[in-house]
Amino acid sequence: MSEGGTPYGLCQDAAIAVDGPKIVWVGAQHDVPPEHIGWPVEDFGARLITPALIDAHTHVVFGGNRAAEFEMRLNGASYEDIARAGGGILSTVNATRSASEETLLANALPRVDALIAEGVCTIEVKSGYGLDTETEMKMLRVARRIGEARPVRIKTTFLGAHAVPPNYVGRPDDYIREVCIPTLRTAHAEGLVDAVDGFCEGIAFTPVQIAQVFDVAKELGLPIKLHAEQLSNLGGAQLAASYGAMSADHIEYLDAEGVSAMAKAGTTAVLLPGAFYTLRETQVPPVDLLRRHQVPMALATDCNPGSSPLTSLLLTMNMGCTLFRLTPEEALAGVTRNAARALGITDAGTLAPGQRADLAIWNVNHPAELAYRVGFNPLHKRLFGGIT
Amino acid sequence: MSEGGTPYGLCQDAAIAVDGPKIVWVGAQHDVPPEHIGWPVEDFGARLITPALIDAHTHVVFGGNRAAEFEMRLNGASYEDIARAGGGILSTVNATRSASEETLLANALPRVDALIAEGVCTIEVKSGYGLDTETEMKMLRVARRIGEARPVRIKTTFLGAHAVPPNYVGRPDDYIREVCIPTLRTAHAEGLVDAVDGFCEGIAFTPVQIAQVFDVAKELGLPIKLHAEQLSNLGGAQLAASYGAMSADHIEYLDAEGVSAMAKAGTTAVLLPGAFYTLRETQVPPVDLLRRHQVPMALATDCNPGSSPLTSLLLTMNMGCTLFRLTPEEALAGVTRNAARALGITDAGTLAPGQRADLAIWNVNHPAELAYRVGFNPLHKRLFGGIT
Ligand SMILES: [Zn+2]
Ligand SMILES: [Zn+2]
Repeated sequence: MSEGGTPYGLCQDAAIAVDGPKIVWVGAQHDVPPEHIGWPVEDFGARLITPALIDAHTHVVFGGNRAAEFEMRLNGASYEDIARAGGGILSTVNATRSASEETLLANALPRVDALIAEGVCTIEVKSGYGLDTETEMKMLRVARRIGEARPVRIKTTFLGAHAVPPNYVGRPDDYIREVCIPTLRTAHAEGLVDAVDGFCEGIAFTPVQIAQVFDVAKELGLPIKLHAEQLSNLGGAQLAASYGAMSADHIEYLDAEGVSAMAKAGTTAVLLPGAFYTLRETQVPPVDLLRRHQVPMALATDCNPGSSPLTSLLLTMNMGCTLFRLTPEEALAGVTRNAARALGITDAGTLAPGQRADLAIWNVNHPAELAYRVGFNPLHKRLFGGIT
Repeated sequence: MSEGGTPYGLCQDAAIAVDGPKIVWVGAQHDVPPEHIGWPVEDFGARLITPALIDAHTHVVFGGNRAAEFEMRLNGASYEDIARAGGGILSTVNATRSASEETLLANALPRVDALIAEGVCTIEVKSGYGLDTETEMKMLRVARRIGEARPVRIKTTFLGAHAVPPNYVGRPDDYIREVCIPTLRTAHAEGLVDAVDGFCEGIAFTPVQIAQVFDVAKELGLPIKLHAEQLSNLGGAQLAASYGAMSADHIEYLDAEGVSAMAKAGTTAVLLPGAFYTLRETQVPPVDLLRRHQVPMALATDCNPGSSPLTSLLLTMNMGCTLFRLTPEEALAGVTRNAARALGITDAGTLAPGQRADLAIWNVNHPAELAYRVGFNPLHKRLFGGIT
């Protein structure tokens, strides 16, 4: 998946030399340098090896699930009916607040295991179902504990600006000032925050409110990213780009100005076809424009209980191709090289000397097969830092 | 999943008495009759037990794959470009003709295993990539061998009328008379055919041609089914109903007359959202009309290398809800009770005394969760005829 060169950066009859957790050499078998000959060899036959997958946008820590709401809606309930029955994001907030750290971890692990089973080695995990200091901190601690419980690297993201909690309805500015920003400071002080995110949308926060959170992130030296232009165009991507954001995510309604701002800032586009599919959206992100401006495109599950109860990054790749018309090569770059970029990670997402030996070994003949199949897992084996 | 009664026919704190391969009693734990008390008990805790799943429409036996074609199309190739490069259904015909029986079986088993891993115990498997006697027979033999290689019941379907092979282009009537019908007779004589199917569509065969095949099926005493009204309305479902078809499949373009004909004939509607999704169709099957006429609805993967490379029946349930607006209860009935009906099976698809003990035991609290999640497999355990 290194840029330039052959399609997919594909190398036939390849060898990868791994020393401890790192790749030290990659190339054609007949070119293995003398110093690595004689090393213990594991032969993967005619299989494909790719960088391990990276899920750059998840909300994988949450309490409860929203199956009842899914069912109510399909039985004809309106959004109001569902809200009246305690549904929507606030039902997840309530369930997350009332769950213990142990329960949240136990509930998240099967989702994480589903990702791992498909060759994922790095997962971004957001807070944002607490909307109070205690629960936001709890979610971030659980996120960290996932990385201890499983051979997976976790990048935590503070998403206090996800929704306005019930006790602040009509007072979003107060929520940002009284809860969101102080919680960010506390969580950062405890080392729980790798990046800062927000939800910039009519049903969530305005660009002005988001900017207040970003100012604090900047002051704390934390990288930022943003849920932007999912349901409408509020100029969120441009705002994020003006802060040098690592990524702008969703971006179905992104316009040319936004694309160009992202290109200039080096901001990665994180496309989330699972939410597009689940919400039956029709507005597709401006993929051609992103290509033309060479904005790197990542693909992620957006795993969350409401708009994307999706735990398959391979299916996400297929959806990226089928629904957003990415090529299979763009889809694979989207869950490797560009997913790494969206997380500010430089030591994974490609196979090259110095990179972590995070490898996925597949029972396929050609990388296009990874995006082509629907609901099939051809993973043969996965290495995390060189270890099975 | 028995009809009537509580939603999903759900029974809390239930017990199922299994004697050999059969269910002998089902009910609430406190009602277990004296004659079963003292039997060895397996406690599944707070899990959900459903009938094992049934995939009522697959083309799971085929040579090669169509990933290259998938990639070409996403890189902008037209259907003509792809045809010129040897793509389309005929590439699968060529790959299937040139593959050995062993290879076809080896290629099919991972797909079958993916279905089994989600609790599937019965799979329908069609021929139709041979389009000559030798290969159609080979496909049906491979289908039978799947049932020997894995703990799964296979129902074979002869689909000689799937496409016009290259040597009969422009002479579909000759193909039906010279190849399709004689092959059906031979395959039936060797006990390889459980049902007869056709593809009634502008790009395949007319109702008149299909009727010729159905006449022979009738003469041989074989049940029939039909790929009908997928891309246009040729009256295929009505034709099938007039032969008392077990099912009419796809049926996106089915009209009121067709629905009413199916209702009268007791024909099950087999909905295939995987093909709808992959082909990015917009015409949804007439679900409301089917409901009003009480036509039973099944859901199936349509697993095939071109229009539905899908091997997850759980994802099919989710797609049935998300794309076709089935309720989660209809989706579950669609892969259990109604899938059995679509295959003419009376001893599976429900949990009741006398039924086979084909059970799926799930790590979920409520059956709606099975359709709600996307790309997640909560199967705890699967029993096939009472055996793990
Ligand atoms: Zn999100
Ligand atoms: Zn089919």
